[in-house]
Formats: sequence, structure tokens, C-alpha cells
Amino acid sequence: MEFTGVRPKGVPPAILTIAGTDPSGGAGIQADLKTFTALECYGTSVVTALVAQNTLGVQDIFPCPPEFMKRQLLSVLEDIPVQAIKTGMMFDSHTIRAVVDTLRSFYTSGLPPLVVDPVAMSTSGHTLLEADAISHLKSDLLPMATLITPNIPEAELLLSHDAAESTKIASIQDMKSAAERLSSGYKIPAVLVKGGHLSLTVSDVCREAENGTRVEWAYGCGPDYPEVLRATSEYNSSSEQPPIRGDAVVVVDVLHQDGNESGSQSTLFVSPRIDTTSTHGTGCTLSAALASYLGAGLSVLEATRLATIYTHAGISAAFPIGQGHGPLNHLHTILPRAVPRPTPSLPFPFITALIESSRATWTSYVRHEFVRKLGNATLPRDNFVHFIKQDYHYLKHYARAHGQLALKSSDFESISAAATIALSIAGEKSIHESFCAEWSISAAELQSTPESPAATAYALYILDEGVRGDELSLLVALAACLLGYGEVGLWLKTEAAREGSDVFLEGNPYIKWIETYGGERYQRACREGIAALEKRVEATPLTVPRFRELAKIWERCTKLETGFWDMAMTLS
Amino acid sequence: MEFTGVRPKGVPPAILTIAGTDPSGGAGIQADLKTFTALECYGTSVVTALVAQNTLGVQDIFPCPPEFMKRQLLSVLEDIPVQAIKTGMMFDSHTIRAVVDTLRSFYTSGLPPLVVDPVAMSTSGHTLLEADAISHLKSDLLPMATLITPNIPEAELLLSHDAAESTKIASIQDMKSAAERLSSGYKIPAVLVKGGHLSLTVSDVCREAENGTRVEWAYGCGPDYPEVLRATSEYNSSSEQPPIRGDAVVVVDVLHQDGNESGSQSTLFVSPRIDTTSTHGTGCTLSAALASYLGAGLSVLEATRLATIYTHAGISAAFPIGQGHGPLNHLHTILPRAVPRPTPSLPFPFITALIESSRATWTSYVRHEFVRKLGNATLPRDNFVHFIKQDYHYLKHYARAHGQLALKSSDFESISAAATIALSIAGEKSIHESFCAEWSISAAELQSTPESPAATAYALYILDEGVRGDELSLLVALAACLLGYGEVGLWLKTEAAREGSDVFLEGNPYIKWIETYGGERYQRACREGIAALEKRVEATPLTVPRFRELAKIWERCTKLETGFWDMAMTLS
Repeated sequence: MEFTGVRPKGVPPAILTIAGTDPSGGAGIQADLKTFTALECYGTSVVTALVAQNTLGVQDIFPCPPEFMKRQLLSVLEDIPVQAIKTGMMFDSHTIRAVVDTLRSFYTSGLPPLVVDPVAMSTSGHTLLEADAISHLKSDLLPMATLITPNIPEAELLLSHDAAESTKIASIQDMKSAAERLSSGYKIPAVLVKGGHLSLTVSDVCREAENGTRVEWAYGCGPDYPEVLRATSEYNSSSEQPPIRGDAVVVVDVLHQDGNESGSQSTLFVSPRIDTTSTHGTGCTLSAALASYLGAGLSVLEATRLATIYTHAGISAAFPIGQGHGPLNHLHTILPRAVPRPTPSLPFPFITALIESSRATWTSYVRHEFVRKLGNATLPRDNFVHFIKQDYHYLKHYARAHGQLALKSSDFESISAAATIALSIAGEKSIHESFCAEWSISAAELQSTPESPAATAYALYILDEGVRGDELSLLVALAACLLGYGEVGLWLKTEAAREGSDVFLEGNPYIKWIETYGGERYQRACREGIAALEKRVEATPLTVPRFRELAKIWERCTKLETGFWDMAMTLS
Repeated sequence: MEFTGVRPKGVPPAILTIAGTDPSGGAGIQADLKTFTALECYGTSVVTALVAQNTLGVQDIFPCPPEFMKRQLLSVLEDIPVQAIKTGMMFDSHTIRAVVDTLRSFYTSGLPPLVVDPVAMSTSGHTLLEADAISHLKSDLLPMATLITPNIPEAELLLSHDAAESTKIASIQDMKSAAERLSSGYKIPAVLVKGGHLSLTVSDVCREAENGTRVEWAYGCGPDYPEVLRATSEYNSSSEQPPIRGDAVVVVDVLHQDGNESGSQSTLFVSPRIDTTSTHGTGCTLSAALASYLGAGLSVLEATRLATIYTHAGISAAFPIGQGHGPLNHLHTILPRAVPRPTPSLPFPFITALIESSRATWTSYVRHEFVRKLGNATLPRDNFVHFIKQDYHYLKHYARAHGQLALKSSDFESISAAATIALSIAGEKSIHESFCAEWSISAAELQSTPESPAATAYALYILDEGVRGDELSLLVALAACLLGYGEVGLWLKTEAAREGSDVFLEGNPYIKWIETYGGERYQRACREGIAALEKRVEATPLTVPRFRELAKIWERCTKLETGFWDMAMTLS
């Protein structure tokens, strides 16, 4: 198979981890799958060894037979177009050989970006790679890698293994040179030496920066950190002090990239050092994040920047779980989504969710006594006339609110849409005047009727949402009226057609009203309103708190609508 | 150990799956971990068997030795306070015994909610539970369960195994009676029989509803579905028609709950039937979602309602991946979070992200030539005077914008905060007047100076954001001025104290200005502004599109600030 990196639109990148397990969920393929998921990738995973471990350490290891590891790997490769691969704990030389052989024979041309985390030892000191496997790792797996991510002991091990004397890494310079030697020695395009084991200061980094090394300060820490934030941290004793001053301690990861044209280059990624024990699975998580970003098509440099930040923020956001070195928090980059994306079988998720959020209120609005009596023609004339007069006032405000919507719009399309509706509502005026004429109410009487508090409350509530909230809040406030009247008109028409119903059209004195709201012109407006709201929510999806705000506006409007029919029934 | 269900605040519920693997990521513990993550739980997992499978079927199975399964299980239980457990593929009787014995001996009192998915066969027809294991499942595991989730063939298998004649489930009535028999036969408090294999209609459900069975229609489908949405679906040929009419086909899951006091009860969960092949891992996902919701403390009824919706929406939102029965989309309930929660080592994530989003613009604002010349006293008098006059006009609008902020506020606390700031800015007027007096400019001249376009543009842009956006948009528009001047004041003071800097305070004609903005009174306002913004964003977290909108407002304001200093330098 040829790896092309092409992937269909709308399909998340599939990322593969080949590693050991951690049943307690903080490291291994479990941490990798959490990372892939948190970074919106499609996770796949091949187990090299079952590991009984938790935050206290490794209790036992059961290696997967290499043949079965290979069988798992083929199940993934032959079916899922993998966009990037990471390897973690390999355990022994047989596993390494099986992985290398399978990848080599499967990919006849090209290989997805491969991140090799040369795991040799657990944080708790348990051997995760047998001694004889190291030479296989170096001779077979490393040369296939796009990027390897040793920590300092691992970098020392990889450099010392063949050499007569051991390598000691104790400075940024040492890290740079180790990364360079690993890159050139094993022909690896990029090497990231992780400096978590080393105590370095802002001054150490600044000295490198002055010598021309590129530096990425996470979260803008470092010498250019805003004074106003520094001072606020100093004032708030609860905050840790950001590393700005020369003697502040930082974590530095060094990326060496072997550039053919642009020349080789080192970049330092600097993060505040966090005083924590929640570091279980940090290495797994970083390499999984790297694979995710590479699989999504980012450059090694950008992937490293983002993966470092993801991992660091995960440590920073860790919650206490387990009795030893707790896991980092993999979920800090995600939020619950209040409303799913529209799909063919769920085309209106937002409006459905609004209605469901206060179903009883909606029903009391759209199936109100006023509506039922209108449908079976038992509604007294006076109630209808009172309603029409008040609705005339209300419509004026409702048209104004569309002017407000135009004012709040940011593009010509939205302005046109709002203005068109304002115009159409202003046009409804004549429909109301003709209703009134039919019921012997003059235009003068219509206009001189004082506005009822129920009409004022509803109309001005909409305008107030327009003052307080954004465009979407106003759109939701406007929708309860639009869609509710569309619902009432259609329902009355559907009922009139249903056998056994007491609703009828022919001979019903209110037929014209029913046909206005159940008719094609008004229903088109409803369809457009529905489409506009769903499209908007799909483009700028809603968090749960934001949905709750909108659901409150919706419920309030449906209640005020119910109050409007009540007003008509009580002539208030 | 005693299970109490108590869990510390801020720690997500830890959920455990005990099941087989699916390296291709759509089923097994992989699907379970994705589900736990998507539902904001902490996932842990114990492997009963490594399975080489993908969307095309099961290629091979390698069972984990029961002793090592037990070792994994203890690694989890002894370290992580598990809030709910699900079991999936058990493979053989040894595994079942090992799970049952380990749980029994570990939990001396109480057991977390246990969801048993009695997996016997893969969708592709592969045996996942050996024949002799079924009796162990029934005698040992089922009686420990809080809830079991058989599909129809599994329910038939469980009911037929001991009985002389085989049970056939072909109707809702059959499902109800099967669920009831399983519940009473095995003393299981709740049984959910999944009806995916059965073709049922809206009429079938309505008939049950008329007989008093409780019905939950997902997404408001069914007879009460709004007419206005039904009509829109009918109009849009791209949408599938929602199941409303009697003959529409639906999927019905039947939950039987064995209530001691309230009596036994059945509830039907009805979803639209989706025409799709993306059903790989549906059963795993549903039981994982059930365990997640139960672990979060929801009732069986509410957990079932939400888990059914989660699974159904996951099928509906599936993307094409794999060549066979594709997986459902586990990620439809989550959104990327633009800004992490504040932590002690990252106390101001929102403001840091705003500044980093347009760092160069920020720097050109807070390190402007005007600022530098002010610091080393090389700024000509005329430029300063022009600046002060225009800043006087600007401040008036800036105070008005805080009035607008009060108008947009929804609680007394926010109103007070906005009004306090408006009052304080109006008070700054006298500082400006005294600056001007020092530079021999009368109050009359100050007021009669025409407003420069740079001042108008900036001030009215803020007010316009207040008109168009919500409270947060306005707060961000206001923050660039607040924090930028705080930054400038502090930076000049810090520079003045730094050896080798040309900035000085003593004898600097602009010392009063520097001390105003670098002083405690103004810095307190900055700290309050920072805290208010971070608190607000933490309470209503930002999606990526929303953050981008706010970052645009921020960048525009910093540019307009730069333009304001430019105006001072060019006397325009």
C-alpha cells in the first residue's frame, strides 16, 4: 500500500498507537486513545503487552505474542487509512522486529509520520524494554521514525549503548548536541529531547536565545510576559509566579530538525515547571499528541509546539486520582457540545432541543384554548377582535426588532435578511387592517386602542434581549413567535383534514387567519428561519451554558406568547 | 473495600470497562474509552481478550489468561475509586469466574453500578462467548448486575438456554415480557432489551402508550413532533422523514425496572431508524454510556434515556471509515475548548491567549514610540498635550461604554461593577484637567478642541461592539485600553528601576502620568478587570469560533490604540 496522506473531507485523521496498556487509564494505549479523542482524531491501537499497572507502579507484564501483535496491526492497517503512527512500550526485540517488518511490508511506498517514543523504563523504575531489545530499536525502528521523543535518561541510553564512555546530559547545550547526534546517527529527520529531568532557568534559555536559537515560550511566559499579568500573579498569592525572571525554573524540550535546504535547526520549547506529582503518562501523552497533530497535517515544528502545550496544560489541569503519581488531565481541551450537528435523520437539532427544553410551555402555547376555539369556530368575536388589535401593536414592535437585528448584523447578507423580514411584517399590517375591516373595526379604532400590558411585555422583552445579547439571542427571541404561529397555522390545517376532529376550515369565520399562518408564504418564512438558526448554530456550536441561556430566552418567549393568548381570552 | 459512591468535587467519575479489544477503534475497550472520554468521565479498562478485528469482522482472538485479567483488575480497583463498571466480551467461563470472584472479594460491602452487556456474538457472526460460558454468565455474573443490556438474539439465548422450548421475540409485548422474565429470573433490578433487530412502527408504540406504558421519544419524534418541523423535513428532500405517522419505522428499546415500592415498570425508548451500515460497536457504546451516566449519579431511567440518545446520535453522525460496518462517531458530544481552565501555573489563560493571538500588534501598542519617549522624557510637549486633549474626549466615550455595559448586565453585581468604573472614569476627568492646567491649557480649550478621527474611531468602535455583541464582547473591547495602559504604566516603572535603561521618573515631566497608570489605584482596576474576564470565561467556556470573534475584537482595539499613539506623534 502507498501512503498518500490524502483523507476525505469531514473524516477525522485516524491515528495508530502501538504500545502497552495501562488499565488504570493514565498511560499506555489508554492515555493515547484519550489524547486522540481529546484532539478530535480517530483512535486506533495495537497492544504490544498487557501491563498490570496503576499510579503506584507496574505490578506485572504479560507480553502479547509477536504473531498476534502483527495480526492486530494488520487488522488496523488493512482497513483504516492511518494518517500517523506512534510507538510506545515495545517490551522486547521480537515485538520490535514484528512491528518493523509489518510496516515495511504493508507500506510499499511512503510511510505515515511515525513518532517513536523510546520507552525503556517506567516512571516508577520498572524495565519496559528488555536489554537486548535496545540494539533492535536502534538498528530497525529508529531509522524509520519521523520524530523520536527520548527523555534525558533515554537519550543518554541511546547514545551510550554503543559508545565506550557514557553520555551525560546536563545543559541545554548537551540536549542540543544529543538531539543532533541522534538525528545524524540514526538518520531521523527530527529529534525531541524532553528536558523534564533537568533543572534549567530562564537565564539559561535567554542565553541560548541571544546566540540565535529559536525559542517558543508556552503561554507567553519568559521575558516578554506582560507586566500587568506578572504584577497580578504577584499580588494573588494563590497563583504560582510565572517564569520571567532570570532565576525562575523552567522545563525545556529541545527539538532538533535536520533540514536539507534550510540547514539544521534547534528550537527550544519552554514551559513553566509545575510542582506536581501528576506526571504519570506524560511521555505517552506527548507522543500521542505529536502523532495527532502530524496526522492532521501540521509541520513537525507546529505539532511540537501544540503537543508540548497540550501536555503541559494537561499536567497543570490534573485532578487528584490514584494514590501515587496521578495521571494528567487529558480532557482539558474539550467541552461538552450542547447540540449535535444536523444529520439527515436529525435535521433540526437546535430547534428540537429548544422545544424539548420546555416542552410543556411550548404545548400550552401552540395548543392554547384560543387556538382550539379558533379551529372549531367557538371563539367569540370579541376575543378575536381584541387579539387582532393587540397583535397589530405587537407586530409594529416585532418589525422594529428586525431593524434591531439588522443593526446587530455584521454582513450584508444578514442585513438584507433582517430588512426583508421587517418589510414583510410591516406589510402584514394591511392583512390586519383587512381582518379588522371584515369585523367592522376601523383603522382609526385599531390605532387608538391602547397597547395591552401582555403585548408590551412580550414585544419589549424581545427588544431588550436585542439590547443585552448578541445576534443569536435576538434570533432565538424572535423565533418563538415565527415558529409558534407557523405551528398553529399548520396544526389547524392538519386537524381540519383529520377525520373525527372538530376543527374545520370551510365556513369557519377565522379561515383567513388560519390560511395566512398555515399558508405557503408564512411557511416559507418559517423554513427560512429554521434553516438560518440551524446553520448558525452549526457554524458556531453551543456550549452547555450558552444553550441554557438561549433555552431560557426561548422559554420566556413561549410563556409570553401564552400570556398573549390569555390576554385575548380574558379581554385584558 | 466498601463502595460508597462518594467522590471528591472536581474529579470526574472513574468508569471501568472489562472487555475485549478492537484495535480498529470502533468497539471493545477502545469504543468504551472513547465513550467515557466523550462523556467527560475518567476511563479505566481491563482486557479480557485481545481481538484482532476491524469493520470487516473478527480475524482472530487471543484470550488473556484469567490470572492476568485478575491482576489488571486489581491494579485498577486497588488504586482508582471506580464509580461504575461495565462488562463486555467475557470470552470464556474462566474469565467470568475470575471477574466475579475478584469483584466479590474486593467489594466487601456494596458494589458500584454494574452494567452487563451479555455479548455472545459479533455483528459479523463471530462467537465471542464460548458455549459453556453462558451458564456461568447466568449463574454468576447476571445476578450481580444493576442493569443488563441484551439485544434480541442475546435475550432469546439467555431465556432459551435452560428452557425446553426456545423463546422468540417479535413484538414490543415480547420484549417487555422477556425483560421482565430476565429481571425476575436473575434478580436483576433493570433489564434493557435492545430492539435494533426488530422492525417496529410508530403505531406499535402508540398502542403501548395508550395501554399506559411510559414512552420516551428521542428528539421529540413521534406523534407530538412539531408540525412546522415535519413540514420543513417534507419540503427538504435531503432530510429523512421523522417517524411521526403510524407506519413509520422506529427502533424501540425496552427497559424493565423491578421496583419494590413503586411496582415494576416498563419504559420504551424510541429512536428514528437510521438507514446506515455504521453500527460497529453500537452495543459496546451504549453500555459504556450507561455506565458513564450511572457513575455520574443519574438514575437508571435517566441514564438509559441519555445513553440511548448518545448512541443514536453517534450512529447518525458517523463518518465513513473502514471498508465494512463502520464505527459510530463517539465525538459528536464534544467540542474543542479554546481556552483551558485557569490553574495555579496558568492563572490567566484567556487574557494570555488574547495577547498571544496578536502578539505583534500588542507589542507595537504597549511599546510604542510615544511610550518610550514619554519614559525617557524626549517626548515634545505638543505631542503630549495633543494626546491629553484627545484622551479627554476618548474618556467620555469610555465612561459611556461602561454605562452601556450596565445596560447589558443581567444582575445587580454586574450593574454595580460597570457603574463603579463609569464613575471612576468620569473622575479621571479631573486628573486630565489638572495635567492640562500644568501644561497651561485651560478647561475651555480642552473642551473646545475638536475630536480627532483616531479618537472617534476607537471610542465609537467600542460602543458599536456594545451594540452588536453581548456583554463579553463589550468587556473584551473595553479591556484593551484598561490593560494596555496598566501595562505601559508598570513597564515604564519597571524600566526606570532597571540599570542601564534610559527611562527615569525623578525629574521626568511626565512622571505624574506614569505614576497614575503604574500606581496602585489603576493597577487594582486592572487586577479586577483581569479577574472578572477570567471568571466569566471559566463560567461560560469558549468554543474556537467564539474565541476567534473575541480575538478579532481585541486585535482591532489594540490596533486602534496604536493609531491613538500615532495620532499623538503626528498631531493629527
